[in-house]
Amino acid sequence: MAMIRNKQVLFKDYVKGSPKEEDMILTESVIGSKVPEGSTAILVKNLYLSCDPYMRLMMSDPTEGGHPLFGSFTPGKIFFGFGISKVVDSGSPDFKAGDLIMGDVGWEEYTLIEYTDKVRKIEHADFPLFYYIGALGLTGFTSYIGFYELCAPKKGETIFVSSASGAVGQIVGQFAKLMGCYVVGSAGSQEKINLLKNKFGYDEAFNYKEEDDFVSALKRHCPKGIDMYFENVGGRMLDAVLMNMNPHGRIAVCGMISQYNLTESEGVHNMYCVVQKRIKMQGFLMRDYLHLFPKFTELVVQYLREGKLVCVDDIVKGIDKAPFALVRIFSGHNIGKQVVEIAQD
Amino acid sequence: MAMIRNKQVLFKDYVKGSPKEEDMILTESVIGSKVPEGSTAILVKNLYLSCDPYMRLMMSDPTEGGHPLFGSFTPGKIFFGFGISKVVDSGSPDFKAGDLIMGDVGWEEYTLIEYTDKVRKIEHADFPLFYYIGALGLTGFTSYIGFYELCAPKKGETIFVSSASGAVGQIVGQFAKLMGCYVVGSAGSQEKINLLKNKFGYDEAFNYKEEDDFVSALKRHCPKGIDMYFENVGGRMLDAVLMNMNPHGRIAVCGMISQYNLTESEGVHNMYCVVQKRIKMQGFLMRDYLHLFPKFTELVVQYLREGKLVCVDDIVKGIDKAPFALVRIFSGHNIGKQVVEIAQD
Repeated sequence: MAMIRNKQVLFKDYVKGSPKEEDMILTESVIGSKVPEGSTAILVKNLYLSCDPYMRLMMSDPTEGGHPLFGSFTPGKIFFGFGISKVVDSGSPDFKAGDLIMGDVGWEEYTLIEYTDKVRKIEHADFPLFYYIGALGLTGFTSYIGFYELCAPKKGETIFVSSASGAVGQIVGQFAKLMGCYVVGSAGSQEKINLLKNKFGYDEAFNYKEEDDFVSALKRHCPKGIDMYFENVGGRMLDAVLMNMNPHGRIAVCGMISQYNLTESEGVHNMYCVVQKRIKMQGFLMRDYLHLFPKFTELVVQYLREGKLVCVDDIVKGIDKAPFALVRIFSGHNIGKQVVEIAQD
Repeated sequence: MAMIRNKQVLFKDYVKGSPKEEDMILTESVIGSKVPEGSTAILVKNLYLSCDPYMRLMMSDPTEGGHPLFGSFTPGKIFFGFGISKVVDSGSPDFKAGDLIMGDVGWEEYTLIEYTDKVRKIEHADFPLFYYIGALGLTGFTSYIGFYELCAPKKGETIFVSSASGAVGQIVGQFAKLMGCYVVGSAGSQEKINLLKNKFGYDEAFNYKEEDDFVSALKRHCPKGIDMYFENVGGRMLDAVLMNMNPHGRIAVCGMISQYNLTESEGVHNMYCVVQKRIKMQGFLMRDYLHLFPKFTELVVQYLREGKLVCVDDIVKGIDKAPFALVRIFSGHNIGKQVVEIAQD
């Protein structure tokens, strides 16, 4: 069988603190150009890779944290995550060469996927393919579940979104505007604030790096209090939100990125608000809600076709640049969904 | 109109730190022995008063905390709370002299209740009257809502209850045993631990005052992890529970009594578990669920008649002793529901 060259990104070793490019290793190996005979695997060419905050948790030593569901990456082994790929060869009756798919793949040019039960075929291929990393992919789905299912939004309510210009935040804000909510976000630069107000339709937005006192910043920007909080950061911001929440407030806990690189997490001091204000706080992972994926796709495809939803993606080109792309999301340098483009088709 | 002597407990002034008996003042006034002509009020003789943790919040200066829903007591004015009373005279068509009622009353021998829409008549009067403060009253109802509605329990799951020998904890533990759960509790003395195991049927219980490391104490007593946490204390214990929770764990936040007397609350450092483990955390007040009160009453009356539920009440006699009784619950000296008996009928 012919062999093809396969550039790969390996995970070097467990990380403490902020991840660096050097925590990943670029290497090259070879891979068979066909699925082994008798196998039901599929061989895919990887086109786009998704960079996501949860990956930081998987870079920690499992004995000192790590992610209880996903586990940790293995030192010296391939790095992996969500991606968009094209089927090159298939031993499975469900896929044929040329099919476009989404699912977990290695950070490499080609991946042999042995278990295809979680691989999803891409329909509606009139959208740019990288949309399936962002708005039409797990990022959009995470936004959908957190907002519609967990925040239980009502027209006229105030929602606050932290890390609002990030991949998930930008979509949540637009869903909330379409629902008729008052939408407020925080982000870490003036450029991002402008984007929130001018591109994603946020009613108010502030640069958290320029605020000493998050409690009063939120009071100023959410004059009617906060009914829903889409939580992406944790720590001090959560504390300040609790102080500004209205009775019966809902908090969808999508992530706590501010805490992932800390050796000791910041304390949250205002948890007593949870009982006083009867707050519901719910951590979630979109993978628990996959039965709602078709409903989500239908809504977002419609919004995109009607021009009601805009996407900003931050695309870095080349598998060689994948470590650089990942590190950016932990330093806040990305604007919108961080994507690695390995190939366009 | 004839006047009757009315011993009263007044609130002296806003409290910082632990409440003391001196924060309340005993006094005596007089009150008319009949409802004023033309009024729809009812005049009640107060029999039993309930001592509850939330009262501490109402003793704080509203500008420095206080309770956003209940507000604060007013310095120099009557102290008040939930109680069981007998109607002495009625201007309302819904009540007549001799009726037994439950509702908010002053901490005094007689109260004129002008707005009777929240007053509830007592049925099933074959139980001791103070049961309507505890198991059949708001305490039992709080346990019922937190356990059945918010914990969404399943047979075989592990529940951990903090402040387990307290008024609410003792009932929650018994509900959970009746549901077929594995029930673990914490309390602050060996006497209380014995009570939990021998009287309320807890599978395991530990004295938190004898544990330096709550994380390992919980690991030892909940070998299969914690599926549900009935939160009464907050702070360090919440942190340790988060570390021991199973995926999809539920936390019913009933109170955080460990934090109420602190000027600065302890930080909760493990909130990232909420997203990693997809934990649902819900603060609640039973008054949002009053439509379920009849369903609750039906269940608890049945359990009591069948001898499946035992109650331990801690009864202090005399209105003069009411401040003493209240202060006890913040020092952990009460065992079971803290009640003040003013009169038996």
